[in-house]
Amino acid sequence: MSEAQPAETKPAEAPAAAAAPAVAEGAEGAEGAEGPSKKALKKAAAAAKKAEQKAAKAAEVALRQAQSAAGAAGGSGGEDLAKDNYGGSAPAGRLTSPEISLATLGEADVGKTVHLFAFLQNSRMQGAKMCFVELRERGTWAVQGIVAASAEGAPVSRPMVKWVGSLSVEAWVLVEAEVKRAPEPVKSVRVSGFELHISRFFCLSPAPQMLGLTQTAANNHFSNEEDAAPEGGAAAVTASLNTHLDYFVLSKRSAVRSAIADVRETTKHLFRSYLRDKGFHEFESPCIIEAASEGGANVFSADYFGKKVYLAQSPQFYKQYEIAGGRQRVFCVGPVFRAENSNTPRHMTEFTGLDMEMVIKWHYHEARDMLEEVLLHIFRELKKQCPEQIETVRAVFPADDFALPEPGKEVRLTFAEGQKLLREEGPEEFRNVRDDEDMSTPQEKALGEIIRRKFGTDFYVLDKFPESARPFYTMEDPADDSVTNAYDFFMRGQEIMSGGQRIHDPELLEKRMRRKGLDPKSKGLQGYVNTFRQAGVPPHGGGGIGLDRVVQFFLNLNNVQYSAFYPRTPARVRDGPPEEGTEETAEAPAASS
Amino acid sequence: MSEAQPAETKPAEAPAAAAAPAVAEGAEGAEGAEGPSKKALKKAAAAAKKAEQKAAKAAEVALRQAQSAAGAAGGSGGEDLAKDNYGGSAPAGRLTSPEISLATLGEADVGKTVHLFAFLQNSRMQGAKMCFVELRERGTWAVQGIVAASAEGAPVSRPMVKWVGSLSVEAWVLVEAEVKRAPEPVKSVRVSGFELHISRFFCLSPAPQMLGLTQTAANNHFSNEEDAAPEGGAAAVTASLNTHLDYFVLSKRSAVRSAIADVRETTKHLFRSYLRDKGFHEFESPCIIEAASEGGANVFSADYFGKKVYLAQSPQFYKQYEIAGGRQRVFCVGPVFRAENSNTPRHMTEFTGLDMEMVIKWHYHEARDMLEEVLLHIFRELKKQCPEQIETVRAVFPADDFALPEPGKEVRLTFAEGQKLLREEGPEEFRNVRDDEDMSTPQEKALGEIIRRKFGTDFYVLDKFPESARPFYTMEDPADDSVTNAYDFFMRGQEIMSGGQRIHDPELLEKRMRRKGLDPKSKGLQGYVNTFRQAGVPPHGGGGIGLDRVVQFFLNLNNVQYSAFYPRTPARVRDGPPEEGTEETAEAPAASS
Repeated sequence: MSEAQPAETKPAEAPAAAAAPAVAEGAEGAEGAEGPSKKALKKAAAAAKKAEQKAAKAAEVALRQAQSAAGAAGGSGGEDLAKDNYGGSAPAGRLTSPEISLATLGEADVGKTVHLFAFLQNSRMQGAKMCFVELRERGTWAVQGIVAASAEGAPVSRPMVKWVGSLSVEAWVLVEAEVKRAPEPVKSVRVSGFELHISRFFCLSPAPQMLGLTQTAANNHFSNEEDAAPEGGAAAVTASLNTHLDYFVLSKRSAVRSAIADVRETTKHLFRSYLRDKGFHEFESPCIIEAASEGGANVFSADYFGKKVYLAQSPQFYKQYEIAGGRQRVFCVGPVFRAENSNTPRHMTEFTGLDMEMVIKWHYHEARDMLEEVLLHIFRELKKQCPEQIETVRAVFPADDFALPEPGKEVRLTFAEGQKLLREEGPEEFRNVRDDEDMSTPQEKALGEIIRRKFGTDFYVLDKFPESARPFYTMEDPADDSVTNAYDFFMRGQEIMSGGQRIHDPELLEKRMRRKGLDPKSKGLQGYVNTFRQAGVPPHGGGGIGLDRVVQFFLNLNNVQYSAFYPRTPARVRDGPPEEGTEETAEAPAASS
Repeated sequence: MSEAQPAETKPAEAPAAAAAPAVAEGAEGAEGAEGPSKKALKKAAAAAKKAEQKAAKAAEVALRQAQSAAGAAGGSGGEDLAKDNYGGSAPAGRLTSPEISLATLGEADVGKTVHLFAFLQNSRMQGAKMCFVELRERGTWAVQGIVAASAEGAPVSRPMVKWVGSLSVEAWVLVEAEVKRAPEPVKSVRVSGFELHISRFFCLSPAPQMLGLTQTAANNHFSNEEDAAPEGGAAAVTASLNTHLDYFVLSKRSAVRSAIADVRETTKHLFRSYLRDKGFHEFESPCIIEAASEGGANVFSADYFGKKVYLAQSPQFYKQYEIAGGRQRVFCVGPVFRAENSNTPRHMTEFTGLDMEMVIKWHYHEARDMLEEVLLHIFRELKKQCPEQIETVRAVFPADDFALPEPGKEVRLTFAEGQKLLREEGPEEFRNVRDDEDMSTPQEKALGEIIRRKFGTDFYVLDKFPESARPFYTMEDPADDSVTNAYDFFMRGQEIMSGGQRIHDPELLEKRMRRKGLDPKSKGLQGYVNTFRQAGVPPHGGGGIGLDRVVQFFLNLNNVQYSAFYPRTPARVRDGPPEEGTEETAEAPAASS
């Protein structure tokens, strides 16, 4: 289609779908008080059906015309016997051959004529009579097709072969073909055992001649540096994060981004399905909140009919409100917002939280252990359900297999035990870490290495965080108020979850607020405390997991933005390349390491 | 607990959980280059386990103390032989009897001693020696309990009975009891065939003496008027929407709100599970967007590090981007924001969208029919999975059963057919409605009545909307550009979904923008159009369903705010009653009809 000019649609000759008011016609004589007679209804229904069919057919014709680009190109002056078998629009009628999907293509299909909708991934002319193409459905699912001119000039003519060879890659196409066994495995594609011998080829949506990001570069090493081009001025072979974000359509089509998306989707699904099975109820936490109550820093404000409102930093209060409201186990999955001006490989301003909260009956470890269970379930199932995706990602983002503890050997240390390990087995600079001060990111990473070495796991729990490191709503350990009934979870030495027991007694809550230097009567906090005065609220605890980070650290991605669908960072909100002629701010690169 | 003062926690005598660094100890002698020896690891593991158990026990004791309110109240001066069997804190040790859940309580439990965590729903003294209580787990699941003083003064004493009778309702309690068959059905509770003969009773979290909203009022007619109190100054028997929103904890505990929440949760789950089964992939659409591109009106703006950003009105563009990115069928479930200053029973400023988008292969009705399928699936399954919830809601919000078409008799009219019905069978005032003008809400409602009368369904589709009624990204009918390949879905005469085929050709898109008076080069729009120039984008279509409205109209709720977890309207963002001493704006009532 690269030669073709973008097409305008032409009015179709088919009758307009809206012009057949059959139902009303059928019902005209039936305006009695009891409504239309049975006969009239039947007549109306039949007429409606007929009109519907007529309209459907008209619309189908119309769709094809809308899809039309430049029409069949490439025909020479002479008669092209294959002219109905290719072109820049949909075929004149629905193809009657069965549709195939590459993931299920098998021996049973050999010898059959089938059709396939796919992206044109590659094409290569071999002389003037043959063209090899690669057709990709999604991710790694591609197959080789062969368009070879027939001696008779049909079903495939030389002009048709030439036309196919001229199409730009990443067009959306429809082919009809016979499935054959490949004489030898086709190494360049996943569906290596079969080939499609193509007899009809339609370009339904053309691609530009120059792509902003090639699939080769998109599936190569994900550099945070400038795009790298080989000598001789060819297309870049590696792409920077900014190029991925500018050409996000092409980035998303890559096998590696598709695999990451699958892992993310599966993680989310596993979180939900596991908790549902355990009697948890899903709810939605609001994004718009009245007061920046959870500390107040790092909150985005918005204009709300002239008043100021805020974007929720977490569903923390609302999870607790659901417990107060009598749903004993709840979870929610939704966006959370942090106005933190951190341009690091693990920060975004909008991300997806996987949050849960549950009534504690005897001990807060009920909540800690449920969270540990759901995460271990996710990790184990990801390895089972997404082995190919993990492999695909690993080819681009090198990683050791994510190590898990054997059942019964989960690693749960107290914060003080963690600090002791750091002092005794960590790097020199951490010899003096204290039990009453929170860990820094480098300390966390160092501890992660020690724990992997000692216990052979990349996933572990630190419990009993110091009071100073936890927010006002966290229950202190009643036996020692220098520590709390609160825990963090880690993956490869990086925090992916914070949780703990919350205070359900309003007096105790006010006391802890004051200890933290907060005023329990201030806006937002007052309403929060008073919620626990509406009725008796069960003891409860839970945690909030960052979905984006779970995916990042499980796959060892070098930037969390690769795990998100539409990453938002302080430096960048834009989707796509800068717009022309509009004011584009001089933004810093989105990523730094 | 109404007599008790709120308790402060006391430091427990149990050893602090964090004081046992057993793991580090065991590993001390094992700092070789290869890590610790097996023996050392084993020793460390054993020590860690012991420390963990010790810590767990300490924490358990601590939790009980944290839960403690005023301790056992109500003991007279004399010896109370039952004093260990009741009180305002958890029992001294975990109860060893099995825990029950009311939903599964049955004949097999009769004669057994069990324990139950529940909300105290009601209590009634009968003389000085007996107290009847109602214990509710959630929603309608409540059982009667009997606390009767034993002749011997134990396990139940007269002071214990008195104390139970003094507890405020909506406290969170733990009871141990023997399950007995009820001599006759207990009409006031759902678990009417059994009774709990209580021997131990602990109040884990007390309720205030005066509730902001009683369960009686919360489960009564949901008035949009002032709260209604019977004569004599007693508590209100019906509550206004504002009272429900102020005392949302108590509102949520009501059987009717709990039932609505179940229906909502089930709807969401059915949407997801059905589409997953059909090969749809879930993704997350961003809330923060760079440009107010979809028309620009009714968008909230926010401050983003000194720049202006916007809250997404819908995931429309991003669904399309996912299609462009090669995922052929996608859906998302998330918040959408409308800065529309409409205070009506069906408008909110933040609500939950159920959105889907799919590649169209032959005809845009593929998308329309998939959406119809998923909604019919939801409605049929709701009737199967939530019959009790529907019944519970209907007692408060009267409604006819939601009428569905028989399979194969789905009602799909063109917009013009709908207008013709209105002209011919609608009220006098709609005799002149035109085919090229959008319907008003009263017209939609009138058409809904006609359709229910003629076709016996509360759910139907209007297709082929006029061009003037649809946004710039909608595909016109190529056969008649006065209409579009776009549809709305209706429930009880009110719109719950808009959808259609989108334009995937950038030139056609620019042409339609110009027809709509929009500048394709303007900020936001330019980036959107150019996305379709990155690569060949398959033809596609879909729709966006308002979850809150689906729940509202399925259950015939008189206000959409009852279907939301935390409704946001122009007049109200606040959760809970106004805060004291803080600036409370003079807000209009949230609801009007």
